[in-house]
Amino acid sequence: MAVMAAASAAPAAAPYEREAAELTKAALTGTDFSKLEYLCDTFGPRFSGSENQVLAIDWMLEKDGLANVRGEPVDGIINWKRGKESLELLHPRRTSMALLGLGKSAGTGSEGVTAEVFVVSTFEELTANADKAKGKIVLFNAPFTTYGQTVAFRSRGADAASAVGAVAALVRSVTPYSLYTPHTGGVNYSDKQPRIPAAAVTVEDSEMMARMQKRGQAVVVRLQMDAQILGYNVSSRNVIAEVVGGADPEGIVLLGGHVDSWDVGTGAVDDGAGFFCAWEAVRLINDLIEERKIARPRRTIRFIAWADEEMTGRGAVTYKETHEHELKRHQIAVESDIGNFDPYGFGFTGSADGLAIFRNLSGLLEPVKVGEIVEGAGTTVDNAPLVAAGVPGGALLDSKGSSHYFNYHHSSADTITALNYDGVRRSVAAMAVMSYVLADIPDDLPHAA
Amino acid sequence: MAVMAAASAAPAAAPYEREAAELTKAALTGTDFSKLEYLCDTFGPRFSGSENQVLAIDWMLEKDGLANVRGEPVDGIINWKRGKESLELLHPRRTSMALLGLGKSAGTGSEGVTAEVFVVSTFEELTANADKAKGKIVLFNAPFTTYGQTVAFRSRGADAASAVGAVAALVRSVTPYSLYTPHTGGVNYSDKQPRIPAAAVTVEDSEMMARMQKRGQAVVVRLQMDAQILGYNVSSRNVIAEVVGGADPEGIVLLGGHVDSWDVGTGAVDDGAGFFCAWEAVRLINDLIEERKIARPRRTIRFIAWADEEMTGRGAVTYKETHEHELKRHQIAVESDIGNFDPYGFGFTGSADGLAIFRNLSGLLEPVKVGEIVEGAGTTVDNAPLVAAGVPGGALLDSKGSSHYFNYHHSSADTITALNYDGVRRSVAAMAVMSYVLADIPDDLPHAA
Repeated sequence: MAVMAAASAAPAAAPYEREAAELTKAALTGTDFSKLEYLCDTFGPRFSGSENQVLAIDWMLEKDGLANVRGEPVDGIINWKRGKESLELLHPRRTSMALLGLGKSAGTGSEGVTAEVFVVSTFEELTANADKAKGKIVLFNAPFTTYGQTVAFRSRGADAASAVGAVAALVRSVTPYSLYTPHTGGVNYSDKQPRIPAAAVTVEDSEMMARMQKRGQAVVVRLQMDAQILGYNVSSRNVIAEVVGGADPEGIVLLGGHVDSWDVGTGAVDDGAGFFCAWEAVRLINDLIEERKIARPRRTIRFIAWADEEMTGRGAVTYKETHEHELKRHQIAVESDIGNFDPYGFGFTGSADGLAIFRNLSGLLEPVKVGEIVEGAGTTVDNAPLVAAGVPGGALLDSKGSSHYFNYHHSSADTITALNYDGVRRSVAAMAVMSYVLADIPDDLPHAA
Repeated sequence: MAVMAAASAAPAAAPYEREAAELTKAALTGTDFSKLEYLCDTFGPRFSGSENQVLAIDWMLEKDGLANVRGEPVDGIINWKRGKESLELLHPRRTSMALLGLGKSAGTGSEGVTAEVFVVSTFEELTANADKAKGKIVLFNAPFTTYGQTVAFRSRGADAASAVGAVAALVRSVTPYSLYTPHTGGVNYSDKQPRIPAAAVTVEDSEMMARMQKRGQAVVVRLQMDAQILGYNVSSRNVIAEVVGGADPEGIVLLGGHVDSWDVGTGAVDDGAGFFCAWEAVRLINDLIEERKIARPRRTIRFIAWADEEMTGRGAVTYKETHEHELKRHQIAVESDIGNFDPYGFGFTGSADGLAIFRNLSGLLEPVKVGEIVEGAGTTVDNAPLVAAGVPGGALLDSKGSSHYFNYHHSSADTITALNYDGVRRSVAAMAVMSYVLADIPDDLPHAA
């Protein structure tokens, strides 16, 4: 009840206006993009199990003079390798088509799979035409609606196609806009039927094959994928760095993004900018403390770049296991993993009392237009195990009403060029202010029972 | 003077309101996209000298029941073949990069060219640093401003680089927006220095290499291009079809787009939709005449799909030579070759009296919002030889204030998916109304002396 009174009668945020202004100014004028640029350009994509990722993490650990900088081991990562892959249209004309095999997909063997394509746009259509799909390569030509809806064809399409006897599955890339750019992502197999090869084609080729089928032209392709799983127990690291709290160092505000990326592009959007904005927030807080412009906060602010979000989420699970002893003292776990183009607020998942405290922050985030707090929207892939254990969850929200992020998502176009630096600066400011204030307020955010 | 009086006192367009309404209705409700879709999907790109193009033209000539359907021979076309090509980044990390060799470019031989990259953003910067460019591969990293400005680096970059001793030239793709999509186009060599290989890289890789150089990282690549010119005198055809005029069949309103495309994508935007809107306009006029909904126009309306706009413009030159005897009776030559996304008017190049007559049309084009007439903007690559010979020139204008068209231009993304069918329908309506009225009015548009 004390919390509620504080929340409604005397906004907890009010005393932090000076600190918020300092942090905002530092973020908007001092965010150092050379770090993110160097990382993406020099090491390339940071795919789980790749040497690039090892080198990138090593380099990150050398930076910035933060406290307790370390890589915490994460095991049990699936090491999938794309290898060579190709898709040839053989009829009604011969041409090569762009494709990206889906993560964890089976390969085709060196001979490849040559078969007629059967195009559907829903799972229901496939089931109703099971006889036509047998022995074919099923193409799911489902237009983008929301990511959540459309991704089902990428995740579950191969399984559904295999169930009706198809020899491989193709999926239209999950994106609202295409410039002949294929988008990869993970496929999830059940154990109920054979694991058939699965790959994404461009929106352009998917629509073209649908038109061909509609006008009665047989569509024949040859799919070849050397894809294979090289191991099931590869190691990586959760990257961690801290500003240690003063009065209550065992209280923890956790904020970050994921360090791994897909194996195409350089992971600048997903999730380079996401972990970078948290990393810069913590770095700027540390700098301002050292410059004595702000006081050391009560609790510890812990930056984390999660390992392996894209493939199996092992980084998140491992953190939860490794830090079981201190989970109760986690004030919140905040993630940025849905873009930093035009941030507008935070999602929050937790108790009503926690929400009230979090909402009190929002006025401090208004100067960078990130003040909207959305109840129930604070769970992400990486904080989900913590939220399930009772820790309040937060998520930086981006680009209201727009799916711009998905233009780049899981594609070769996910590079520094795609970023909006102004949006990233505002993300840094929002992360810095939010984490500093939650680390310093007297109240602990209540955990779920 | 009679013309001027008609223009100002009694708009010549007024009597055509009924015909314009019929044509507009037919275009907006009856444009048959299956034709363009079939053509692009089934034959693929229509690159000059390719078998695809031969097949596509053969198929076009079978269609629609128009009069005098024919392919008029065009010789002297350069037959350039891309062949295999690749670009590998060797330092500071190893990765393959997307590229598209430029049309007419020299090849590298099978060994390829391995060299350090020297990045500039202007010709002046290259000249001022000539010593640093010697023996290197020069990359022109010039951001898109307008197509006209930026294309200079694609056209003339190789020559400028060769002049200072570079071994190859790369150019940042000429586009305002990229999803890791390279854009090709022609390179023009002078005879003053060796013809070095030239290719386009993506905006993403161009910016990345510029950042690497700026931070002092040596950028080393291997460029390999099998590109070669197979012949200098290949044949193609200008595709022609007509609605023959009633009272004055030797008067000609010429309208079209170009049938050739680049060898990537399927040429749906450049210039499939362009020639299609002219072709459909003529087809719909013919249909309405046969249905007796409109009268046969005084003059002949001639649809043309020009050969070889992209490589050397031989189709346009040949037409002018072949039709020398009837050029004086060309009322106008109208082209659509800068997009059909959101047409807003016509450019017109010709006499002031001709402009006045053309302007009288604009009210009839307002219902489809294509009523703006822009003086001096009626010359295109394909009507230029005719305009130079005195024929009034017209050009359908698209997407005011936007460079949307150049997202797709000369890339694999130039497919049916890129089209805005509503914009194409309005283009068909505008072409139909404009050509019908200019074919029927009593006045001849005055030619230049």
